[in-house]
Amino acid sequence: MDVSAFETGLVFARQLDADDELAGFRQAFVVADPDLIYVDGNSLGRLTHRTAARMREAVEVEWGDGLIQGWNLGWFEAPARVGDKIARLIGAGPGQVLVADSTSVNLFKLVMAALALRPGRERIVSDVLNFPSDLYVLQGCIRLLGNRHHLHLAPSSDGVVADLPALLEAIDERTALVTLSHVTFKSGYLYDAVEVTERAHQAGALVLWDLSHSVGAVPIELDRWGVDLAVGCTYKYLNGGPGSPAFLYVRQDLQEQALSPIWGWLGQRAPFAFDLEYVPAPGVTRFWVGTPPILSLLAMEAALEPLLEAGMERIRAKSVQLTSYVVDLVDGVLAPLGFSLGSPREAARRGSHVSIRHAEGYRINRALIQEMAVLPDFREPDNIRLGLAPLYTSFAEVWEAVERIRRVVEEGRYLRYPAERQVVT
Amino acid sequence: MDVSAFETGLVFARQLDADDELAGFRQAFVVADPDLIYVDGNSLGRLTHRTAARMREAVEVEWGDGLIQGWNLGWFEAPARVGDKIARLIGAGPGQVLVADSTSVNLFKLVMAALALRPGRERIVSDVLNFPSDLYVLQGCIRLLGNRHHLHLAPSSDGVVADLPALLEAIDERTALVTLSHVTFKSGYLYDAVEVTERAHQAGALVLWDLSHSVGAVPIELDRWGVDLAVGCTYKYLNGGPGSPAFLYVRQDLQEQALSPIWGWLGQRAPFAFDLEYVPAPGVTRFWVGTPPILSLLAMEAALEPLLEAGMERIRAKSVQLTSYVVDLVDGVLAPLGFSLGSPREAARRGSHVSIRHAEGYRINRALIQEMAVLPDFREPDNIRLGLAPLYTSFAEVWEAVERIRRVVEEGRYLRYPAERQVVT
Repeated sequence: MDVSAFETGLVFARQLDADDELAGFRQAFVVADPDLIYVDGNSLGRLTHRTAARMREAVEVEWGDGLIQGWNLGWFEAPARVGDKIARLIGAGPGQVLVADSTSVNLFKLVMAALALRPGRERIVSDVLNFPSDLYVLQGCIRLLGNRHHLHLAPSSDGVVADLPALLEAIDERTALVTLSHVTFKSGYLYDAVEVTERAHQAGALVLWDLSHSVGAVPIELDRWGVDLAVGCTYKYLNGGPGSPAFLYVRQDLQEQALSPIWGWLGQRAPFAFDLEYVPAPGVTRFWVGTPPILSLLAMEAALEPLLEAGMERIRAKSVQLTSYVVDLVDGVLAPLGFSLGSPREAARRGSHVSIRHAEGYRINRALIQEMAVLPDFREPDNIRLGLAPLYTSFAEVWEAVERIRRVVEEGRYLRYPAERQVVT
Repeated sequence: MDVSAFETGLVFARQLDADDELAGFRQAFVVADPDLIYVDGNSLGRLTHRTAARMREAVEVEWGDGLIQGWNLGWFEAPARVGDKIARLIGAGPGQVLVADSTSVNLFKLVMAALALRPGRERIVSDVLNFPSDLYVLQGCIRLLGNRHHLHLAPSSDGVVADLPALLEAIDERTALVTLSHVTFKSGYLYDAVEVTERAHQAGALVLWDLSHSVGAVPIELDRWGVDLAVGCTYKYLNGGPGSPAFLYVRQDLQEQALSPIWGWLGQRAPFAFDLEYVPAPGVTRFWVGTPPILSLLAMEAALEPLLEAGMERIRAKSVQLTSYVVDLVDGVLAPLGFSLGSPREAARRGSHVSIRHAEGYRINRALIQEMAVLPDFREPDNIRLGLAPLYTSFAEVWEAVERIRRVVEEGRYLRYPAERQVVT
């Protein structure tokens, strides 16, 4: 690469920013250090100013002054109220989305409910690209039910793209449930949810989508697609804060048949009657178990506003532009340095993060964090994930991130770091 | 009652406050309105100043500025670190307590683990004083396991005190698990945990205590008592904030045999290796499922400091004084107005809240909240619960609360309120 090419590149990036109709949303977020390039919003979204203010109010006024009365002034309704807001981001009508627990706990509840709705069918279909926690939950459910079910994992030839023919082929009349991550955690592969859902329904199976890496980044139409069940995380593109509570979706006409395996009092028909016998609450509320972490929940609620305002179509349009721009820069700038693309090349099959692969990916990632003020994350064995959050990632940042990655490799900066993995990253 | 008796009463209350060596701890808490008498700390503890400051730091600095790096700077260790702090309040050595999920979800995990450890035993023993959510969870577990187990509920003759002979008698060689609330939610009855635990162990059963209403109010010695399993809530006497995450305890020498029914990635041996097969983590960590709500968790952690500083023995001594004082005032002031005691008369059998019963309890409670600046809570059919938090409840407040209750009844103020229950209270 010659220097003039980078100059051109930056001018181009700035032009993209000038033309970006979502650019103003960056002001909704706390950007403490403008030189720090944050490309890990797919793991933990940035803090909004609104959330910071909301948390002071929730802690100091609602709890500090209002004490127990907070429960009657909005806390008790929060799981359903915030669920209905998330519903607007995932194409779901009201009364089908509940905020509760963690994604994995919600997945457990819905998988157990789904398997009970398909007695006599012993197959569960997923694939090797799914987030391991989802597979662990499935393995645990199978053990709990006496090893009568079998988890069929469709392959992937390259670890990047799903083997769709093999996946669709595996869905048969023995299949109780098909469950996948809508966007995969490592490569960012985006499934054709309509095609998979339709195939599952043809076979009489239920389908459960984990929306953790797609919600807030990719348009989702659960109702229109006829999806049965879904779960998702709120601390990635929804910017809810570290470990903010997850959500679950149960299609309206399944709600009266589906039962949670965990019978908690807030999923009871009349929790404050304190009857000794459990009777499930009507609707999706029956999947509510115990008291939700209100502070984390209200932080997340406040963070939804910019997303609802921007709208998923505009967010997706910018996301595609951002990831396509990264792909171009990988091809033009990073490929000569030993990088390859770890994400789908086709924009329609991509979520909002791009994995770039390099034999020295682990050390390069460490150098980026330690000395280059770039915050991506690393996934074994060789993936650096660049998460691009349309509401606050600028094209100039993307350009600059790639420039810093180039310097880390060309200048051999990564060589100063050990290749041995730290226990926790 | 003549007026001079109240004068005497208040002088006496003020003398108790003057002699109270924990009185200074009240300054650790936000008291926005000194005229408001808060006697619902058994439902939601007060906010500490420390927590308010900690939350600003956690939100605005750790998340806002630090972004994803927060996970490497204390968040990831928080469930075990805070668990070890709670351990010091419940007589548990390190490595046995984990902060996670809600109390009901934790109960579900430990009940399922316990039943798997006692195959062939079909009886679960609890009693009618247990918190209904605990009974619901048990009912759900029984259904999930194919209705092979039977829930035996020991009776209570008066709804206040356990029928201990009947309870102990029910624990036999068919019993897999004995599980009770250490302090009951309505009457505040405190079990002799040693006696019940020993009886369970004689019969070869496991024992699981729900510490929600005792932790932070009553000395607990899980290790010394040989308790197998426990769960508890952190937003009552631990002052963790609305819905702050719960905890669970698994005795050291059970940890390698016990398995969680929910196999989440953070309970996996090496979550960041992203293997496709679940292998349980060593120790209590295997009961960790998904990403915890960090903001709610850190709020709670900050709130533990005053409790650790005061020490459980001093806290219990003041708690006994407070509840005994309420019992005296009920006998002297409120009994002539139709109130009766809904809690054990014997201090050794009482937690830190006192229920007072009145045929018009519901309306009296509403009048107290609406016009008398007293915040207790109400539990069907006729219990007004007065929660006494030794770190911030003063004897003068107790005196004043009883005085306001007297006025509500003597002046007929409660008659203005409808007797029909609101849906949510």
